[in-house]
Formats: sequence, structure tokens, C-alpha cells
Amino acid sequence: MNRSFRLAPGAPKPLSAAAMASDKATPAAEAAERPRARTPRGFADRRAGELAAERRIVEAVARTYESYGFEALETGAFEYADALGKFLPDADRPNEGVFALRDDDEEWMALRYDLTAPLARFVAQNWETLPKPFRRYAFGKVWRNEKPGPGRYREFVQCDADTVGSGRPEADAEIIAMAVAGYAAAGLPREAYQLKINNRKLLNGLLTAAGVASEGQKLAVLRAVDKLDRLGLQGVKLLLGEGRLDESGAFTRGAQLDHAAVDSVLAFVSAGAGGREATLSRLANVIGGSAEGEAGLAELSRIGAALASFGVGEDQALFDPSVVRGLEYYTGPVFEAELLAETVDEAGAAVRFGSIGGGGRYDDLVARFTGERTPATGFSFGVSRLVAALAATGRADGLAARGPVVVIAFDEARMADYFAVAAELRAAGLSAEVFLGQAGMRAQMRYADRRLSPAAVILGEDEIAAGQVTVKDLDLGRELAAGVTDNKAWREERPGQVTAPRAELVATVRAIVGRAR
Amino acid sequence: MNRSFRLAPGAPKPLSAAAMASDKATPAAEAAERPRARTPRGFADRRAGELAAERRIVEAVARTYESYGFEALETGAFEYADALGKFLPDADRPNEGVFALRDDDEEWMALRYDLTAPLARFVAQNWETLPKPFRRYAFGKVWRNEKPGPGRYREFVQCDADTVGSGRPEADAEIIAMAVAGYAAAGLPREAYQLKINNRKLLNGLLTAAGVASEGQKLAVLRAVDKLDRLGLQGVKLLLGEGRLDESGAFTRGAQLDHAAVDSVLAFVSAGAGGREATLSRLANVIGGSAEGEAGLAELSRIGAALASFGVGEDQALFDPSVVRGLEYYTGPVFEAELLAETVDEAGAAVRFGSIGGGGRYDDLVARFTGERTPATGFSFGVSRLVAALAATGRADGLAARGPVVVIAFDEARMADYFAVAAELRAAGLSAEVFLGQAGMRAQMRYADRRLSPAAVILGEDEIAAGQVTVKDLDLGRELAAGVTDNKAWREERPGQVTAPRAELVATVRAIVGRAR
Repeated sequence: MNRSFRLAPGAPKPLSAAAMASDKATPAAEAAERPRARTPRGFADRRAGELAAERRIVEAVARTYESYGFEALETGAFEYADALGKFLPDADRPNEGVFALRDDDEEWMALRYDLTAPLARFVAQNWETLPKPFRRYAFGKVWRNEKPGPGRYREFVQCDADTVGSGRPEADAEIIAMAVAGYAAAGLPREAYQLKINNRKLLNGLLTAAGVASEGQKLAVLRAVDKLDRLGLQGVKLLLGEGRLDESGAFTRGAQLDHAAVDSVLAFVSAGAGGREATLSRLANVIGGSAEGEAGLAELSRIGAALASFGVGEDQALFDPSVVRGLEYYTGPVFEAELLAETVDEAGAAVRFGSIGGGGRYDDLVARFTGERTPATGFSFGVSRLVAALAATGRADGLAARGPVVVIAFDEARMADYFAVAAELRAAGLSAEVFLGQAGMRAQMRYADRRLSPAAVILGEDEIAAGQVTVKDLDLGRELAAGVTDNKAWREERPGQVTAPRAELVATVRAIVGRAR
Repeated sequence: MNRSFRLAPGAPKPLSAAAMASDKATPAAEAAERPRARTPRGFADRRAGELAAERRIVEAVARTYESYGFEALETGAFEYADALGKFLPDADRPNEGVFALRDDDEEWMALRYDLTAPLARFVAQNWETLPKPFRRYAFGKVWRNEKPGPGRYREFVQCDADTVGSGRPEADAEIIAMAVAGYAAAGLPREAYQLKINNRKLLNGLLTAAGVASEGQKLAVLRAVDKLDRLGLQGVKLLLGEGRLDESGAFTRGAQLDHAAVDSVLAFVSAGAGGREATLSRLANVIGGSAEGEAGLAELSRIGAALASFGVGEDQALFDPSVVRGLEYYTGPVFEAELLAETVDEAGAAVRFGSIGGGGRYDDLVARFTGERTPATGFSFGVSRLVAALAATGRADGLAARGPVVVIAFDEARMADYFAVAAELRAAGLSAEVFLGQAGMRAQMRYADRRLSPAAVILGEDEIAAGQVTVKDLDLGRELAAGVTDNKAWREERPGQVTAPRAELVATVRAIVGRAR
């Protein structure tokens, strides 16, 4: 592997000229070698408003998980590639969908693509010293080497909870109940989403009963069913059989099931959702009576009973045979939370929002390391998806972050006075800053306005001589500009700016900031 | 680049056998292909106690930065390698100290090694639409492809604040004052550390005056001076001249200064710390009178004046000509926060803890993209170092995280009752869980003890029949075992376990948990 960076070829143009320029740092002749300022494809910069929304969600979900007795754990961004395994459905992407590199000892490392595979490694490494069952939650970035595109990110935040060392269906039910509690804590109304539960043993049992023995063929069936939302029953039918030709002319080879097996699978995935008990009865009729299928049904039945004792309503969590989850490592129950609200895309068309989280049981993932089957189950919040979902359901606060109180700087010799004002406001619990650029009063006001600051403090020579301070209500200015407030009210009740004795600085600012919406 | 993972050669042994094993998941013959459960070199798993300490620090520092009017920003983990630049001192490491890989469009991407280089890229990309000066804070992981070793991590957390678009020395002073406020908010006592300030223009000016014109030679001088702590004056002297042979026999080529220049540099770096005014006077005598040196002195003087108006004491932030900082991109003032407390290593020897943060002015970093000089200054908390520093100064809370109240599970048929108890405790604001493994009462108690749970709830057939609940004080058990509490006090005042009416569950648990330290 080539250890040196490839220099960017050609002569990228700078995107913008710096307005604050003082002097040219590089001669024009060097411009050709300047790197272009841009984010890598599929990576995004995120500003204060979005980050605040995300932090609120992560904190609420983490608090919920802790209240259920789950402890925090954080693993590194990298895992050895062999430890991470290949469980993503992206078999056609570089390194099967992960970002991998070779360390200087020639070992392949890869960035984690979820928080479950690193947990399995951690548990295998530390099993002897862990309390069992081991219950942990984790949040952090995960990376997937997917094909980037508009709105398709290759880095996102997940927040997971897992119970390792319990094979009880009650552990699955608890994970589902916690997910429901987590969505509530994050502020998602219960009618906005549904949590769908299935068990891979049902479909596996059905396939075994239909004579399908190959694991590869079973996986191909799972992946075909996973595309039901996107391709519909007819598309899935093709993928279960010989294969499917898409609009672009590309052919996807199918699972090669015979007609009878294809029909069984389609009958199964169409057995539909509804009340948990009713769905269980319908499923009993279409799983073909295999031992594995029966075991899966019995597990679902115990999960249903436990969900009832957790108070999880039939409308919040239901059994749905069409849910399979894309990751290969699930061995039993699988869960998927789906936003029901439709949102509107840039072109105004209604779009299904889809999955906002999911999980399941993965009893073989620790055994990859230890050779000993270790039952495990968990759920993962797609945090970035949830931020977007809250925005889509109108539950997110505005994503614009408010700026600080800005102290206008007039005179180099008076900087100490301005800093004293800012310090006094901060001591009173307000955010405040002295303007530190080089600009006149109007530009400083424009700056405060762009920061969405609630107020500006003016301490000119007149104010200093008179022992006073002037505070300007910037929200009022914005409201006037937007036509929200009329001039009359402005003159009578909200003067726009107040000059007060310097000793009343904090009270005067508070009165104005308190009005800020 | 080879797109496929290299499979681990040989037959790694599993580290542990799973105690909860139910059946063999893989035949013994497959053991040879099992991956070994281990963290990549230089990466660590972190448990609840350490994470809680880190989150407290990050939240305190972020709140401080927001109160100064800095807004949150987060950039992606990856940057294009050309955008990131090569500013690390690790010229001899793979990819000069960063983790890099080639994307599927053949562009080189690298994980960020700090939060400053991505900020420069962000600012260059968005300059036109940003409020100016642009003030942002950020926290997150950074990655360095350093040589791993015991206690030397290649992934760590930084928390930065930067002001871009202000060349005022007051902006540098504000950054220093904020760092001091951040350390205070994080709980570090002011006598535990010092913030040292220097200006690269002093040494640059001195070198220019001594006839050193080459940038490479100046950088070599900076890097030699940066090793003062580790090698002492004598070692630095060698590195300023022809070079130095270390204990292992490796020769490091020096900066090739002549004797007079070496002596000037040594006199400069020995000009010592102390009161800010006194140091400025001493420095005036050793910088050789170049224009750049004079400009550097004037900046330091204004920084000193602003620090006084911020109320930053002479003992908290001082001028020290031996501070240079390893990163190449600094152009003027540089800052370094150093823990004064000595800590003790595993062998019992006193060790200097060293740097817990630093920063400086980097007026050319945005110009790499735009060609226009854009003044910028910032400070970075080494969060992981600060967690360790707080522990070393005895200011960290215990790193052991408390577990939840554990509801003992006796009877499959009674799970709903146990879940109801846990739900009731959670609704009252307590963390609680039902034991979900398969184990007897003693093993369940042992589990609760390993989780450092304050209490266990026992709801056996007797309790259920009598409408009662028994709550066991687990801290008392631990204290008895540690000899902290004697038997007499135990019998008279702290009964160890209480049986109460079921309706008094919450009050009974609260009384015991409230005693927990």
C-alpha cells in the first residue's frame, strides 16, 4: 500500500475570498496548489441547532437506558477487520461496506459500522470479569462505506442498548419496552411510529420445511424480503425466484427458490400485522410446521406476554412477518421502528420516512470469537434519523441557535470596560461577548443580528461619562422587519432600546432577553 | 489498493470460554478460523465511570464556551488529505501521523488529527455566509497514527474553542481566559496548573536577526526547543547544532545553526517565566531587535493587558519563552497548559504529568485554501488528559459507576410481578432492573454486588402471599465485608434488610438507597 498521500491533481479554485483579508499569504502563482475546501462525499458539517437537538435526544435516551440498569460503554472507532466481520448487506461495495486500512503492522483495521459488532468483541474479550447478564448502552458515530449521494451520509450517530448473556424472550421484550420509553423520552409521540417485531426462526423454519438447506440461499431470501418496502410483492417475488431486471437494465440474481417455496414465502410475509395475538394465530397457519418455526412462534408469544406486563400497547409494538432487518447476524427476534408520518421531499412529493431504529437477537456473534454460543439482544436508535423524524413531526425546537448578548466595541482604549460588562453578564448566567472584529457600529449590529442575539449592549463615551449603559432589543428589530410588531406597540410598550444606570446592567438586559422568544 | 480484507493467519485462541454457554455454535474444527477478541493497538474500551467523568468535563467546558458566545460546530471524522495538510511533528510515521485511506473515487481521505484543521476547511468553505468573527467550539474524537504503546492512545477526545476573523491580541487573551474558566468549571483547582504563553514571532525574529532564513531550518529549531522538557538544555543544544545521538544509538540530525545562533536560542528559551511584565522586560533584551520580534513583544504586551482586565492572575497565565507547541501551523502567540502536580507511575517513581491543553494563533491556515490571510486563534482541551489530571489531583469522583436496584427473579410465573416492581422504582426516579439471567438467588446477589447496586428487592412467594416486599441493603454488606461497619451498629441501626408492605416499596428502597454513599 502506498504510504504517501496523493496530491490533488490540477488546480482547484478557492471557493471564496476571505473578506477579512489583510495581506496575501501566498503568491498568486501558488494558487494552483491550494487544496479545495470541501467535505468528503457523504460527510457533513453540522451547526449548533442540529447538534443541540441531537444532544437532547442522546441524553434523554441514555438517561432512559440507565434507569433500566444499563451501564455506559465506549469502544474505539477502529476494530480489527476480522473481529468486525462482514455482516452488512453491501457485498458489492469496497471492503463490503466498511472503511478499512492496513495498520503499520500490516493488520487490517476498519471503522465500526455499528455498535453491536464491537460489543460482541468486547464481551468475548472480557467475559470472565463481566457481571452477567452484561447490560450496556453506547452512543457514538458509526461509518459505512456506502455509495454517497444527496442526503445519504456515510457517518451517523447510533445509540444502542444490549443485554448479553440472557436467552430469555423477556430480555427481548425489555429491549423493546426500553426503545418505546426512549422514543417517548426523546419527545416522539406514540402515534407517530410503530415498532414491528418478527422472528427469523419463522422464515428459516418455513424454508427448511420447504427443502431449502443452503445458508446462502436463506440469506438471499432474507435480503429479498428486506426489499419489500421498496420493490413491492411483485419485485420480491422475482428476487425469490430467478432474479430481477431493474429500470437501469441491471440484473440482480434471485434466491432460486422453486415456485412452491416462493409462494410460501410470499404468503408468510403477507400474513400481515395487527393485534399481537391475532397475528400469532395467522402465522401458525403459514410457517409450515417446522420445529424451528414453532420455537420462533413460542418466543414471540412470550415476548407478547412480557410486553403486556411492560405496558407496551398493541398499537406501539406489533408482530409483522415482513420485517427481516438487513444485517446478517440476527438469529431470532428482530425489531424495527418505523415512522408512520409521511414527509414531503424537495419536489413536494410525499415520502415514507421509514426506519428510525431497530435491532434483534444475535446469539452467535460472541461465539465467532469464543466458540461458545452466548445469547444477546439489543436495539439501536438511528439518532440522526430521529432528529429528522422529530423535525418532520413538528416536535423539534427550531434548529436556529440563539446567539449571545453582544457588547459593541467602539474604542480601543475602552476594551477593559467592555470586557467587564460581558463578564458581569456571564456571572449572571447570560451568554455574552465583546465584538472582537474590526468594524463600525452598524456592522457590529449586523453581526449580532446574524447570530440571532437577543440584545446588544452599547457603552459609548456618552454612556460612560454619564455612568449609564444602553441595551438594544434585537428581537424587536427582527419582529419589526418581519412585520410581526407594529410601530405603535413598539413606541408604547417596547421601546427598542433602554438607557439605564450602569449598576442596573444585568436587570436591564434580563428584562429584554426575557422577552426574547 | 487491495480491496479485500486480509484474513487473520494462523489459529488465534479464544481468550475466554463463555460461562453462559448453552451449546457449541461452531464445530471445533472451525476454531482455527475464529478471530481473536482484542482492541487494535492504541485503542481502548472505556467503562461507565471514566465516561461519566469525561462527560461532566465536556459539558462544563462546553457550557463555559457557550457563555462566551461560541456556537457549537461538528465536522465529519474524515477530511480530504490535501485539506487536512501535514502539520504534525510525526514526519517519520505512516502518512505523517494520520490514518488515511483512498476512497472509491481514488481521492485520499484521512481521519482528522485535531479539530483546528477541519475548522480551517469549514471556514474557507463557508466564509461568505458566516458571521464574522466566527466563534465556534467543538468536541469530539481525533485520531493520530502514532506509535502505540502502553498508555499511549491513538484516539482521544479534544474540546476546542476558536475565534476566526479577529487579529486582535484581545482575541488571544479571551481564548486564554476562557481556557482558565473552562478548567475551573471542570473542577481543576487553579494552583494545580499553569498556562504558559509565548509568541513564535520572538524566536522567528531572533533567528532572522541571526541570519537564519530557511523555513525548514526555523521549523527544526522549533522542534528542537519543543523537546526541552524531555531532553534538557544540553540535548536541545545538540539538536540546534549538528545533531544528537540518543541512548539507542539513533542519530537525529540537528538544525545546523552556528554556535552564535545556538547560544542566542538557548539564552532566549532560558529567559524564564515569572510575572508577565518582568518576563517581557527580560525578553526585550534577548530577541535581538528584529522587527518581527518587536511585533511579537507588542502582541504579548497587549495580551497581558487584556488578561488583567479578564481577571486572569499572574500565577495562572504567564509568559514563558520555552513554550513552542509541536504543530507547525501556529504563526504567533502559542499557549500551553501544564499540570504542576507530579504523579506517580506504576513503579512508584514521580512523573511530570505535562500538557493538559494548548493552542495558539494560526493566521495562515485558512489561507491554504483561499489565498487570503485570515487571522484565527484557539485553544484545545485534551479531555482524556484532563480526566486523568483530575484523578491525579484527587478531584475526580470515584470512577466506579453505581449499579441499579436489582429485583431478584425467583419464579418464571412471577416475572410480571418483578417487572411491575422495577417499573414502579423507575417511575420514582430510581434505576432498577429485573435479573434476566438464569441463576439462583445467591448468584443474583453476587451479580447485584458486582454492579455496585445499592439494594436488591426480594419478592418471594412468602412476600407475595403476605402482600409484602423485602429490600436488602447491599452497601451495608460491602461495608461489613470491608470492616467499615461493625456488627453492633448493623444490628441496632441498620438492619441489613427490611420487609415492608408492598405499598411502601418506593419509600423503603429510597431509605436504603439514600444511605448509599
